[in-house]
Amino acid sequence: MSFGDQASLFPDGPNGLHLPELWLQQEGPEADVVVSTRMRLARNVEGFHFKSRFKEGESERLEAYLREVLLEAEPRFRYHSMPALSSTEREVMFERHLVSREHVGDEQPRGVAFAPDGRTSVMVNEEDHLRIQAFAPGFDLESVDQRVNALDDDVAGRVRYCFDARFGYRTSCPTNTGTGLRTSVMMHLPALALRPAGNTKGRDRDLVRMRNAAEELGLTVRGLFGESSRAEGDFFQISNQVTLGRSPAQTLQDVRELVKLVVEWERSNREAHLRDDPGRLDDHVWRAWGLLTHARRLSSSEALSHLSALRLGAQLDIFHEVRTPVIQSLMVNLRPAHLQLRAERELEPDERDELRARLIRDALGSSTR
Amino acid sequence: MSFGDQASLFPDGPNGLHLPELWLQQEGPEADVVVSTRMRLARNVEGFHFKSRFKEGESERLEAYLREVLLEAEPRFRYHSMPALSSTEREVMFERHLVSREHVGDEQPRGVAFAPDGRTSVMVNEEDHLRIQAFAPGFDLESVDQRVNALDDDVAGRVRYCFDARFGYRTSCPTNTGTGLRTSVMMHLPALALRPAGNTKGRDRDLVRMRNAAEELGLTVRGLFGESSRAEGDFFQISNQVTLGRSPAQTLQDVRELVKLVVEWERSNREAHLRDDPGRLDDHVWRAWGLLTHARRLSSSEALSHLSALRLGAQLDIFHEVRTPVIQSLMVNLRPAHLQLRAERELEPDERDELRARLIRDALGSSTR
Repeated sequence: MSFGDQASLFPDGPNGLHLPELWLQQEGPEADVVVSTRMRLARNVEGFHFKSRFKEGESERLEAYLREVLLEAEPRFRYHSMPALSSTEREVMFERHLVSREHVGDEQPRGVAFAPDGRTSVMVNEEDHLRIQAFAPGFDLESVDQRVNALDDDVAGRVRYCFDARFGYRTSCPTNTGTGLRTSVMMHLPALALRPAGNTKGRDRDLVRMRNAAEELGLTVRGLFGESSRAEGDFFQISNQVTLGRSPAQTLQDVRELVKLVVEWERSNREAHLRDDPGRLDDHVWRAWGLLTHARRLSSSEALSHLSALRLGAQLDIFHEVRTPVIQSLMVNLRPAHLQLRAERELEPDERDELRARLIRDALGSSTR
Repeated sequence: MSFGDQASLFPDGPNGLHLPELWLQQEGPEADVVVSTRMRLARNVEGFHFKSRFKEGESERLEAYLREVLLEAEPRFRYHSMPALSSTEREVMFERHLVSREHVGDEQPRGVAFAPDGRTSVMVNEEDHLRIQAFAPGFDLESVDQRVNALDDDVAGRVRYCFDARFGYRTSCPTNTGTGLRTSVMMHLPALALRPAGNTKGRDRDLVRMRNAAEELGLTVRGLFGESSRAEGDFFQISNQVTLGRSPAQTLQDVRELVKLVVEWERSNREAHLRDDPGRLDDHVWRAWGLLTHARRLSSSEALSHLSALRLGAQLDIFHEVRTPVIQSLMVNLRPAHLQLRAERELEPDERDELRARLIRDALGSSTR
């Protein structure tokens, strides 16, 4: 059984840690360009202060209460109190997109609940009392919309949400007040980012065009892990900003519109590259393969950028050494905390890069034949 | 029979072109650091003007005369008049180091004679009437000294050289007057050039140290093809500048001293890299291998830099996929004009890079098993 083919590095969870299935290795609708769709709702519960104003002992009581509510609402949920996890385990949760960066480093009592299939999760005591999330591979707003709202309705039958008839859901930070809804679509845009040979402006031009279109719709574009500057591996997140005065349906419509537009740009850029200079694409993909299967040290960022090239090759059907599910599994399983969890100790950066390179060689070696 | 293993791409010479054996694929003394040794003598013949002052028809007469002299002196010599060769063929002669860059592009009647083993050659009507050269793999001043002087003595028995009792041999350019001797040693210095991780000054420091030591001895350091700025593939040429007032023996002694010094620096840097961070060296070599065996387009300069890494790995005995002779054969056979000669037509840069990448994959693929 190959490392890269596994649903998860840790099917049973080492040291009592539960990890969900790696749904990211599935391919959903528009998989050529869209990696995944995510939706989250920010909710707070009547009878408790907002997080910034918790009284002594209130966060503990709230976490215990919400844990019980969630496990009653969805008995298949796994629940972890974040402080009970090691820092590596908390980082792993972040690398799986189950919790936010803030939820990893916080000092407060807080937790995370998730379904075994990993497609639904809830953060407890993040910025808001509840952050209810649903995920799907590919571009699938319907699926995440249906699941996040089903869970939200279920929880709403058990607790009383902070709700204002005029503004909507009240949240810790006003930027979420209203719908409390954030929809994010993770897109793989290597051809938008791959400049025509000799054209140093190409990349910027297409990215500026995308950012302008996003701004007009009140949407933002960021990188894989929320970074605003460059997007590692050419993975870009499109998400809505506005939660007040715009209905969930309108928000979804805006996101859908931009995503469809960007999908078309990316596809037509891919076609143009294939038509104008197929040899350059071939070279781009085979170099990535040569490096991934031979390098002895690979940083997370370099590995991601080569995996991005392989994903492009696989999706264009010009490269057949490895399938997209293996690539997407590696994209997650090779992140730093996943590696440390596997090694069962903290690793120096060079050790991590060497372990990563070895695992990639093993995974790609065995998946190719 | 593999491309990379062949003595020459063109054993019998296409289109009547004669090419000598590729002696560069032999390993000589100190082969770990020294690629080759070369010596040349600048000579002019009484009874003819210096090149810049040739009268009408004089260059034709001189070429015909010297051709006859050379073929009498050494009946095994092959002789080509440069204007009878295509521009690609002339470039191939340059890539083999048989002729100078100037000899390729000149308009004058001029020629080149060489032994079938490629270890002796003579340019006729280059800057001087005769440029007598000898080559040897590795660091072997004795061998080139012996051969170049044997040929020089033989020719001196047949023609009268321009010689001045006070200054020595008279040459077209005063920088060669005196001994007319230029000794060059081609060194492979990847460890001097490979910076310690995180140290951006390392490379400059060692190269500056080498240049300073050279200057003190009246020697110069240049790149593989005489470029003075950067050295492609970390190949550096050390050669003497002074020809006046210094005996050939003293010149050889100076060159020997600097080469020995630089060999020791390079070796101790290699040992330091192996001791301090063997993983980094491994990564360096395997990445080069991964790219050479997978890239679909390789420029001459990039290929040379990866071949340099393989040569380092082979010489350090940490890399066993390919032997030094194959690497050194590729270093020559993949230069642009060699590729065009093989393709039997002019190639666009992309075509050349694709052909180069394909030939490298073929050569390394078949030489590895």
